[in-house]
Amino acid sequence: MSAVRDIGGRDGQPSLARSLVAEALGTAFLLIAIVGSGILGERLAAGNAALALLANALATGAALYALIVWLAPLSGAHFNPLVTLVLALRGDIAPRAAGFYVPTQLAGAIAGVVIADAMFDMPLYTLSSHSRSGPSQWLSEFLVTFGLIGMVWTCSRLRPTALAGVVAAYIGGGFWFTATDFANPAVALARALTDTFSGIRPVDVPGFLAAEMLGALTAVLLFRWLVPDTR
Amino acid sequence: MSAVRDIGGRDGQPSLARSLVAEALGTAFLLIAIVGSGILGERLAAGNAALALLANALATGAALYALIVWLAPLSGAHFNPLVTLVLALRGDIAPRAAGFYVPTQLAGAIAGVVIADAMFDMPLYTLSSHSRSGPSQWLSEFLVTFGLIGMVWTCSRLRPTALAGVVAAYIGGGFWFTATDFANPAVALARALTDTFSGIRPVDVPGFLAAEMLGALTAVLLFRWLVPDTR
Amino acid sequence: MSAVRDIGGRDGQPSLARSLVAEALGTAFLLIAIVGSGILGERLAAGNAALALLANALATGAALYALIVWLAPLSGAHFNPLVTLVLALRGDIAPRAAGFYVPTQLAGAIAGVVIADAMFDMPLYTLSSHSRSGPSQWLSEFLVTFGLIGMVWTCSRLRPTALAGVVAAYIGGGFWFTATDFANPAVALARALTDTFSGIRPVDVPGFLAAEMLGALTAVLLFRWLVPDTR
Amino acid sequence: MSAVRDIGGRDGQPSLARSLVAEALGTAFLLIAIVGSGILGERLAAGNAALALLANALATGAALYALIVWLAPLSGAHFNPLVTLVLALRGDIAPRAAGFYVPTQLAGAIAGVVIADAMFDMPLYTLSSHSRSGPSQWLSEFLVTFGLIGMVWTCSRLRPTALAGVVAAYIGGGFWFTATDFANPAVALARALTDTFSGIRPVDVPGFLAAEMLGALTAVLLFRWLVPDTR
Repeated sequence: MSAVRDIGGRDGQPSLARSLVAEALGTAFLLIAIVGSGILGERLAAGNAALALLANALATGAALYALIVWLAPLSGAHFNPLVTLVLALRGDIAPRAAGFYVPTQLAGAIAGVVIADAMFDMPLYTLSSHSRSGPSQWLSEFLVTFGLIGMVWTCSRLRPTALAGVVAAYIGGGFWFTATDFANPAVALARALTDTFSGIRPVDVPGFLAAEMLGALTAVLLFRWLVPDTR
Repeated sequence: MSAVRDIGGRDGQPSLARSLVAEALGTAFLLIAIVGSGILGERLAAGNAALALLANALATGAALYALIVWLAPLSGAHFNPLVTLVLALRGDIAPRAAGFYVPTQLAGAIAGVVIADAMFDMPLYTLSSHSRSGPSQWLSEFLVTFGLIGMVWTCSRLRPTALAGVVAAYIGGGFWFTATDFANPAVALARALTDTFSGIRPVDVPGFLAAEMLGALTAVLLFRWLVPDTR
Repeated sequence: MSAVRDIGGRDGQPSLARSLVAEALGTAFLLIAIVGSGILGERLAAGNAALALLANALATGAALYALIVWLAPLSGAHFNPLVTLVLALRGDIAPRAAGFYVPTQLAGAIAGVVIADAMFDMPLYTLSSHSRSGPSQWLSEFLVTFGLIGMVWTCSRLRPTALAGVVAAYIGGGFWFTATDFANPAVALARALTDTFSGIRPVDVPGFLAAEMLGALTAVLLFRWLVPDTR
Repeated sequence: MSAVRDIGGRDGQPSLARSLVAEALGTAFLLIAIVGSGILGERLAAGNAALALLANALATGAALYALIVWLAPLSGAHFNPLVTLVLALRGDIAPRAAGFYVPTQLAGAIAGVVIADAMFDMPLYTLSSHSRSGPSQWLSEFLVTFGLIGMVWTCSRLRPTALAGVVAAYIGGGFWFTATDFANPAVALARALTDTFSGIRPVDVPGFLAAEMLGALTAVLLFRWLVPDTR
C-alpha cells in the first residue's frame, strides 16, 4: 500500500504504472493457482472430490502467501476490488489509483483463467456450467467476505507483516469450512469463464457479488468501531 | 490480552465491549471451521474417514492461526474458557472481564455451529449421536488440554508473537496424534449441538469437561514452577 | 540452550531440574505425535498407506514445530541425544547437564509411546515386528541424521529463531523423501516398543543407531569447517 | 549471498570453497526431496496419482524451506543456475563465483538423484521415459520460471528474510497450479537421470531449458523496471 512512497518516481516513471503491473500480475497468478490446481486436482483425483479440493485448497493457500509477500511492496497486493474499495474508503489508497486498480484486477483475473486453461490444454475460455446458488451459498459467501475484509481492515493496521499468512491460511482453510470461499468479485467474474472444477455459472455470479458486497459492507461497519483509525 | 491498553477508551466506548465482540466473533469462526470442514470433508470423502479428518485438521489449524493473529490485538484471542480462567488466575485479565468472556465464548461457539450447519444445508441444531467416551478418550482429552494450557502459559510470556503458530500447529496436528483434540469446554458444549462429523453426544460432554479441567489444572500447577511469573 | 541463564535460580530451584522436566515433556509429546498419528492414520486409512503416511508426516511436523517453540526457552528443546551430544561438544551445554539430558530423553520417549498406545486402546508396550533394515535404509538414516545435525549446528548459531520451523519442515517432509526419517536414537529405541505403524523391530535398532551416529559425526566434521565457531 | 562477508576468510580458508560445498549440499538435498518423495509417493499411493503428487508437493515445499533457511547464510542458497546468473547480472555475486556455482549445482543435483534412487533401492541412474513436451508444457515452464525469478529479484532486495517461505510456498503449490514446475535447469537435467515419478525424458530437456531461460529473461526485463536497483 505504500508503493508510491517506497518505489515510485525514482527514475521518473509514474509509480502508479508499476503498482498496476504488479496488481495485474498478482491477480493473474492467483487465478492461475485457483483454476490450474482445480483442473489438475480433478484430473488426477479421478472422481475423488475430496482429494481434488485438498489439492485446490493447499495450492491456492500457498500461492496466495507467496503472491502477497512478493507483490505487497509494489502494489499492496490487493488482488481484490473489495479490498481496494475498503482501503480507499479508509484513505489508504487514493481514489484515482483505486479507480485504476479495479479494472486492472479484473483484466488480470481473466488473463489468469485463460493462461491456466492453456497450460492444461483446455479451451481458453468457455462459460462455466457449475451451478453455485441458493441461500446457503449466499450466506457462506457473505460470511467469508465479512471475515476477509475484517482481517484486512484489522491486520493492515495492527499486524501488517502477518497479513499474508493470515489471508492465505483463512482462504486456504476456507475451501473446506465455507461452502464457497470466493470473497472476491474479480475472482467470481473470471471463474465464470472456465468450465472446470472451479468454475461458476455466469447466471450465479450476481448473487455471489451481492453477497460479497454485503459482507464487505458489514465488516466495514463493525470494524470501524472495533479498530478505530488512529494512524 | 493487552486489548484494554491498545485499543480501549479512545472514543469513550468501553473497551470491554470491543473485546467481547472480538471474542464472540473468533469463537464463532472457530466452530464454523471445525464443524463446517467436518461436514464438507465427510460429504466429499464419501466414506474415506482419513481424508475427511485430514481436511478437518488442516482447515481447523489454518483457521486457528488466522483467527488468533487477527483478533489477539482486540481480545487476546482466547476463544476458550479454560484459557481465560488460567490467564485470570495469573492476573493477565481482570476477573470481571473474565466473567464476561466465558459466556460470550459459549454464545459465539453455539452461533458458529448454527451458522456452519446453515451454510451446508443441515438442520440448524440437533443433538449429536457421535459417541466419544471411555478412559482412553478421557486420557487423551486430559493430555491435549494439559499441553495447550502449558503452551499458552509459557508462550504468552516468553514467545507471545509465536503463540498463534504454536497453538494452530498443536491443535491441527492433534486431530491425528490425540484421540479427541477438543481441549476447550466451549467447543465441547457447542459440538453437542450438531449431529455431523465433529459432533459429540451430550451425555459424553461432562466426561470431556472434567478431563479438560483436570488437564488445565495439572498444567497450571506444573508450569507455575517451570515458568515463574517474573513480568 | 540458554535455559540456565534465562530461567534458572530465580527462586532457588536448581534450573537443571526445570530443563529436565521440559526435555522429558517434549520428548514424550514428540513420541505421542509420531506413534499416535501413526496408529490413527493406519486405522482410518484402511489400507491406504499413502494417506496414513501423509497424516503421520503432517502431524509429526506440526507437533515438532509447536514443541520446539514452546520448550526451547526452558531446555533448548533438544529431544534427541545426538543433538545434546553435539551441542555439548561445542560447549553449548555443560557436560554434566548433557549427562542428565540423555537418559531423560529416553525415559520421556518411552513414556510417550506408552501414553500414545493407551490413548488409542493398544497394548501399552509390545515389541515391534516392523522390519526396517538393509543398506538402503541405513544410507537413508545416515543421510537424514547428517542433515538434521547440520541444520542444528548451523541454525542454532546463525538463525536461532528459525530453527523450529526448519527442523519441523525437514523432519515432516523427510517422512516422504527419506526411507526412514528417525534421526534420533531416543525415538528409534522407543519405537521398538510399539507394534504399530511407526514401530521398528528391536533387532533392527542397532543398525539405525550406528547409521545415526555416523551421520551425526560426519555432519560435525563438515560443519565445524563450514560454520566456524565464532561466538 | 553475503557468505563472503559473513563467513569467509576467518581461518584463512577460501570462503568460495565453503559456499560451493553448501551449494552442492543444498542442491543434492533438493533433488533427494523431489525424486525421493516422488518414488515413495508413487509406491505407496498404488496408482492414485493425486495422492502421489500431494506427497511430492508437500515434501518438496517443506524441504525447500528448510534448505534455504539453513544454507542461505553460507552460499545464498541458490540451488539453481538461473538464480545464480540473474543475481550475477545484478552484481549480487561475483562473475567468477557464479562460474563455479553453476557446475557445482549441476553436480549436486545429479548426486542427489543417485542418492535418492539408492535410498529406495532403484537403479542408481537410468534415462527417464517420462514424456514432458508440447506447447502447453513449455508455456507452463516459461510461466513458473518467470514467477520464480520475479520473486527472487524482488524479495532478495525488499523482503530477504521472507524469501525462503515465498519460494517454498510457490514451488510447492506450483506442483498443482502449473503443469510442470521445474523452473530450474539443474533440476531438469538431473531429473532426466531417473526413470521414476519425477523423471523427464532426455529428449524433452532442451525444450524445458529454453522455456526456463526465456521465462527468466522476461522476468529480469520486467522486474528491472518494477524494482529499480537502489541498493
